[in-house]
Amino acid sequence: MFVIKIGLLGLGTVGRGVYNIINNEKGYYFQTEDNAPQIVKILVTDTKKDRGSELDYSLLTTDPDDILLDNSIDIVVAVMGGSEPELKYVLRALNNKKHVVTANKQIISDHMALLLQTAKENNVSLMFEASVGGGIPIIDTMQQLLKINRINRVTGILNGTTNFILSQMSQHRTSFAEALKTAQEMGFAEADPTADVMGFDVSRKLSILSSLAYNQIIQDDDIYKRGIVSIDAVDIEMTRQNGYVLKYVAQSFLKGDKYYTLVAPALIKESTELAVVNNEYNVIILNGNIIGEIKISGKGAGQNPTANAVVGDIIYILEQKAPIEADFSNPISNGGIDGFHGKYYFRFQIDNSQQFSAAFDCVDKYVEKKDVIYQRGNLFFFTEDIPSSTALKIEKEINKICENIFFARVIE
Amino acid sequence: MFVIKIGLLGLGTVGRGVYNIINNEKGYYFQTEDNAPQIVKILVTDTKKDRGSELDYSLLTTDPDDILLDNSIDIVVAVMGGSEPELKYVLRALNNKKHVVTANKQIISDHMALLLQTAKENNVSLMFEASVGGGIPIIDTMQQLLKINRINRVTGILNGTTNFILSQMSQHRTSFAEALKTAQEMGFAEADPTADVMGFDVSRKLSILSSLAYNQIIQDDDIYKRGIVSIDAVDIEMTRQNGYVLKYVAQSFLKGDKYYTLVAPALIKESTELAVVNNEYNVIILNGNIIGEIKISGKGAGQNPTANAVVGDIIYILEQKAPIEADFSNPISNGGIDGFHGKYYFRFQIDNSQQFSAAFDCVDKYVEKKDVIYQRGNLFFFTEDIPSSTALKIEKEINKICENIFFARVIE
Repeated sequence: MFVIKIGLLGLGTVGRGVYNIINNEKGYYFQTEDNAPQIVKILVTDTKKDRGSELDYSLLTTDPDDILLDNSIDIVVAVMGGSEPELKYVLRALNNKKHVVTANKQIISDHMALLLQTAKENNVSLMFEASVGGGIPIIDTMQQLLKINRINRVTGILNGTTNFILSQMSQHRTSFAEALKTAQEMGFAEADPTADVMGFDVSRKLSILSSLAYNQIIQDDDIYKRGIVSIDAVDIEMTRQNGYVLKYVAQSFLKGDKYYTLVAPALIKESTELAVVNNEYNVIILNGNIIGEIKISGKGAGQNPTANAVVGDIIYILEQKAPIEADFSNPISNGGIDGFHGKYYFRFQIDNSQQFSAAFDCVDKYVEKKDVIYQRGNLFFFTEDIPSSTALKIEKEINKICENIFFARVIE
Repeated sequence: MFVIKIGLLGLGTVGRGVYNIINNEKGYYFQTEDNAPQIVKILVTDTKKDRGSELDYSLLTTDPDDILLDNSIDIVVAVMGGSEPELKYVLRALNNKKHVVTANKQIISDHMALLLQTAKENNVSLMFEASVGGGIPIIDTMQQLLKINRINRVTGILNGTTNFILSQMSQHRTSFAEALKTAQEMGFAEADPTADVMGFDVSRKLSILSSLAYNQIIQDDDIYKRGIVSIDAVDIEMTRQNGYVLKYVAQSFLKGDKYYTLVAPALIKESTELAVVNNEYNVIILNGNIIGEIKISGKGAGQNPTANAVVGDIIYILEQKAPIEADFSNPISNGGIDGFHGKYYFRFQIDNSQQFSAAFDCVDKYVEKKDVIYQRGNLFFFTEDIPSSTALKIEKEINKICENIFFARVIE
């Protein structure tokens, strides 16, 4: 009997989840189909390492060409992470007429047009549901919506690590450093959390979603991003007292021939749908011109949800559905950060009266302050509706006066 | 050039939306495809009625067989509503080898197995995304999840009318009657709101979702449902003071060889994901054994969202994707309402001290009361964790003593 053969590049968390669902028959599809697909080869860096008993060690190889050049393999699953060598492997697989499913947000974000074009030229599919939102079927949902709708807005909480940290700070009133430590201990954050807390991870995901939504490649580099490392426990408390929850939000929208993108901490009104998505959960809100607003949330990370997305793509290919449509010819360009404006929250740490009056003077050049409070060495205030660039100017000037500053826009 | 021909049964709100998207080229898919499908015939009861200028009146017919027996028509879209004659027409269309897309929750809920079987025998597709959740792509999402996961729980706010009424009561502190009137004036409620406020509409939708999720036909009649008509403004206020929001919730779950279903008002903890879905929005939460919890919300009613779902199904058929899998052989049976238990909120209107002491005595036979308050002629209290049947016994006894009673379970 003809059996679809799959080669797996990488056997980390996600790879192991995919292996369990397919070869260990944990997934329903693979229990009932007589000719269920099988993983026949797995690329690892060390074939000798102990990886537990539920693994067929004879499938392991350290030579990528055992998979990429094997003509009996139909689908390559690329779940190594990072840029190289995975990009090179994926291109080689596509050029050898293999379908590719990947969870690698970096190579998709950086090379989506090239990869989709290479897939098309070779008459195979390139699928990447797992690259954004973990288990949330956002790429598929967006593809379906786009057949009928124009999407004009994408909003989301796209990083489980930082959402977990902010939820912990809010629930347990801990500092950023303590919450990060907890996240690391619980496996929700990497030893080096830079990509998460500085927004690099989020902006790659926003780049992927926005490029598909607006039919134009929007590079990660093109997205303004601000990290969450300067959030303090006092910010969580003060924003809560004003009826807000601090979240790390990715936003993009299309207006006329301009697109606008932003990754930044934001104050969300409590008891709204962005505000209540906590811990490792992600949420994505899409606005279509016909369907209206649609929201999907689910676990944004973790072995099983992410593996579910990878295996969903494999089934999509097995069922010979249409590949991802890639039209990046929409003549739009970056409208800059002032597409985003609003009321801003500011907090500076002020150590003496000289700093205090200097800070006041410099803020007054740009905005009227509202609800000003000085409390335990911190000056807090809200602004009127200002463009994002004005907030950045204030930050720049204040940075000359005091070291510890946090600010974020209110999303009503 | 070969063009797919569509026959439309019914030109009400949804039918008109479908017509606009397809024939008036409001949908993206139908702007760009050279051989875009067209609606070629529309069944109405009155061809002379004024239906505005953006309609090709030559397509109208009052004879269903102009569509059902026309061999050039490939897809029949059934959006009349009600049971007969739409059921008869849909069966005739399927038996004449036409694909059918319908928004009719009643015929799908009552005859899903028969209709899917008839479609299968005739090698055509029967699709019904629009029958549940308006624009929310819940049937498709569930079908995709089920290829990998076992779904063990379905929770949702599935009726836009009642969610609108409860949201209005909560936001404007109005009575049920006033909120219903507003809903009717704004077009969110029918002149006869019985099906909505008594739970018939919700339980049909829960029947459809649960049957697909658990692989067994779960009849609407089999679902215990309780309406929301006895909710008073004082209930909204009292539950809010205790940190809850009143919502009309559909729930089902699978445990062992039993399924459990319930449609009833419920107290939802504020700032949780069910609590913040307001007005005409719906939300559905699915639990899969691999993906975990996934939530989708969007507009549960309205011309464009529902028409979007219908047209999505049409495109699904055009792209020749696999039809809905229908396996109803799972040997499970109804576990009854005591699968649902919890803390209950009760409120009785008490007019005199005799009623007061009689009510106290009768409640004391069943439960310990907590947080008892007597205020402006109403007795309020919460119970300990009790099975649903105990709550119903209390209701039955209290109804002998006083006329105005409301109770609802707390979903933590």
